Formats: sequence, structure tokens, C-alpha cells
Amino acid sequence: MAKYIPRLYCLDDLKETVTIDLAEQQAHYLRSVMRLKVENSVLVFNGRDGEWLAHIVVIDRKHCKLLLIKQTRPQMKGADIWLLFGPIKHGRIEYLIEKATELGVRRLYPVITDHTQVSRIKLDRLHAHAVEAAEQSERLDVPQVKQPIKLGDLLKTWNPERLIFMGDERCNAPSMHYVCQQNPSKSAAVLIGPEGGFSDQEFKHLKALSFVQPVSLGPRILRADTAALAMLSCWQSFCGDW
Amino acid sequence: MAKYIPRLYCLDDLKETVTIDLAEQQAHYLRSVMRLKVENSVLVFNGRDGEWLAHIVVIDRKHCKLLLIKQTRPQMKGADIWLLFGPIKHGRIEYLIEKATELGVRRLYPVITDHTQVSRIKLDRLHAHAVEAAEQSERLDVPQVKQPIKLGDLLKTWNPERLIFMGDERCNAPSMHYVCQQNPSKSAAVLIGPEGGFSDQEFKHLKALSFVQPVSLGPRILRADTAALAMLSCWQSFCGDW
Repeated sequence: MAKYIPRLYCLDDLKETVTIDLAEQQAHYLRSVMRLKVENSVLVFNGRDGEWLAHIVVIDRKHCKLLLIKQTRPQMKGADIWLLFGPIKHGRIEYLIEKATELGVRRLYPVITDHTQVSRIKLDRLHAHAVEAAEQSERLDVPQVKQPIKLGDLLKTWNPERLIFMGDERCNAPSMHYVCQQNPSKSAAVLIGPEGGFSDQEFKHLKALSFVQPVSLGPRILRADTAALAMLSCWQSFCGDW
Repeated sequence: MAKYIPRLYCLDDLKETVTIDLAEQQAHYLRSVMRLKVENSVLVFNGRDGEWLAHIVVIDRKHCKLLLIKQTRPQMKGADIWLLFGPIKHGRIEYLIEKATELGVRRLYPVITDHTQVSRIKLDRLHAHAVEAAEQSERLDVPQVKQPIKLGDLLKTWNPERLIFMGDERCNAPSMHYVCQQNPSKSAAVLIGPEGGFSDQEFKHLKALSFVQPVSLGPRILRADTAALAMLSCWQSFCGDW
């Protein structure tokens, strides 16, 4: 196998011959976990300037300085797909963020619903999981983690040109691939409820909106996180960047 | 919300007015976790006789006897899709089994590959996870967990009419939805490698087989478990029972 070159997300602007200082945690990772030394290679990206090859010029217990050598990939934007999710419990939510990042979600929206039971959402942890998944999946950007918002408030100001896909077990909704064929829009969102699903009132409200598209996900009852990954995969295959 | 009726998988034949004895663990679950009492309702299924409503006639610390009342759903077979997976590490594999069960996989095949690092596969644990996911997802059967088999041996006796989908990051493979449109077969399998992927030799061998279909899953590098869920979702939407 080719030698694995670590990939790191950073905030600095990336330009030729510039040096950047990594965060203490990243320095620790490169030195103590990856056992890298001066002159070893690292790849960096910031979501704006593409991916860059860099060489380590200083590395010690708390610091790491990189010299940028050359751009290895130009910046590209992935498909314009968002995930709106009722926060689910610890363990499952990290997995959801990881998978959504790999599947190319651009924006992550925690939505508060009638049955939401998770009281505090640690946005910094969600962001950290998204960063790690972006580094591993060779993404050139990190999905944006938005502040939690009440579902009703989000829908009030929604741009109706962005279709929201929602799994629907209660009636005979069309399948994902049928809807994508009829409506091959280049921007969309996927909505999942919390454990316990949407309230009857929310469900009725959602189904009355022209930009909410219920879809069937088969005869089995999917967990919310499974439904999200299934809808994201189908959308990417049909309308997205696959 | 309607009162949740527990659903349990059992091995007994299910027929009207028959009584069945549950396993000790299931008795414990109904009594101590769900707090059920005599005359309360339970749903049972065995993968052969559909789903049945039953009433508790005896329940104590170690025993639970159910009286079968009536069939609530006839037996149906889901789509004919298998998952072949290089065993991945603890934690991730349970999640994969859960999701694959929800997504309707009929058969789970652990395959041993050149880079397989997991030495012992606990088949009884995998089966237990599949049972739990089947109970929760309202499936009428439980996916069959097969004995681990060397990838080469499995391919030697493979029925070439069952297409094997495999994610391919190394070349310009067609997308899932294109392949499904061209080949809307009613039986298929999805193959994922272990952490570290397939060896070059395995990869070459796989690509030379007429029944192995490499597919593109976009510009990001997906983890093996993400790739499996993505391919299963797309196949179900196109060719399966969604």
C-alpha cells in the first residue's frame, strides 16, 4: 500500500510558500499518533483553497509548523444537499454526522420538534465529528453545523425551491427514485424526526407544505438515522455528485 | 401515541390457539423491562408463519407462556439482496448488521479477505443483533448469518445470475442508478472489503468476473460500512421492495 499521508482541516488561508501553525491537538496527533518528523508530508484543506501538500518544518510537544508546497487538488463544491435532523441520542448522532459527511451533506441542521427529548446539543462535538469525517473521506470542505432551530421556525422561512424529502411510513408515498426522476433538482434537503417520530400535528403540517415530499422507504420501519442515510444515498445517486 | 406492543422473534410454529414458551431472556424483557402482565399483548413472528397477536397466559421471573390469538400479517418475503462483508471492527459491525437488517438484507456473509484483521467473528452476536433489528423494524423474518468463508472460495461457486455490486474508487465506474436501470435484476449482492480494502490481487480478480459490477459512489472516500448502506439503499429503491 502507498504510504498514508495525514489530511488535516485548518482555518488558515492556503498559498504557496506560506507557513501555518497547527492547533495543539493536531500537533499532538501528527507527533504522538502518526510519529511524524520534520520534513514529513501532510495534506491540508480549509474549504476554500483546495487541498495542499505541506512539509513539517517544526514539530514538538505542543507546536507544529507546516510549509505549504503546492496545491494538490483545486477547490470544488459538492452537491447542494442539507440534512435536517431531530437530535437523536448520544452514540447514534455521532454516527449520523460521520455518515452524512461522507455522503456529502453541505449543511447540518439540528431541528427541535414536539417529541425532541435531547435537551442539550453539543455543537462543538458535532463539528469535531464532521471535521474528522471530512479529513478521512477526502472531502475538500466541512459541512456547516447550524444552531438548533424549531422546526416550525425553519419551515416559515424556507426557500420553496429546495425540496425537503421525508420518509413516510403512514401512507403510500412514491419511491425516492420516482421523485428524483420527476424532480431532478440540484438542491434539496432530507428531514428526519427524533426518536418517537413527528407529532401528528407536525406530520399534518409537513404534508401540507408544497416543498415537503414524503417518500416511501419500503415495508420495514427504519430508524431515523437509517432513513436519513438511505434518502441521502438515493438522492446523491440520482441528482447529486455520484 | 398508540400503545407500543412488543414484537418478538421465536422459533416455534405459529398456529391458532397454540401456546408457546418464550426463552428466559425474552421472559425477562417482557416482565422486567416492558412491565407486562398476564393478558397483555405481544406480537410474534418466526420467518415462516407471518406475524401473530398473542396474549400472555403465564409470566414469572424465568418463564413466559403465550397463547396465540390470530395472525395479524401473512408471511411475505422481502427482496432478494445479500450483503458480503469483510469483518470490520467491534462497534461498527453491530451497526452494519442493524442497518443491513432494516434495509432488508436476506443473507449476511462474512468474507475473509487478504487484509482481514478481525480474527474471530462472533456469529451468535451478529445473529442477536439481526434479531433485535428485525423485531424493531417490523420485518417478518431475520436475515440468515452465514459461516465466514474465504472470498475466493465464495466466488468459485457463485451463481453468475446474482450480480455483485462493489464500490470502486479507483476508476470511473458507472453510478448505481445507471447499473440498476440497465440490469433490473431481482436478486443481487453488495460486497464491501475490510478496513484497508481489498488487496490489489483481489481487486484485479474481482474486476475480471462477469458477475461483479463496480459502481461509483462519488468523489469522497466512503468507509466500508457507509458504502454498504449506500449501495443497499440505491438497490432497494430501484430493484427492491421500496
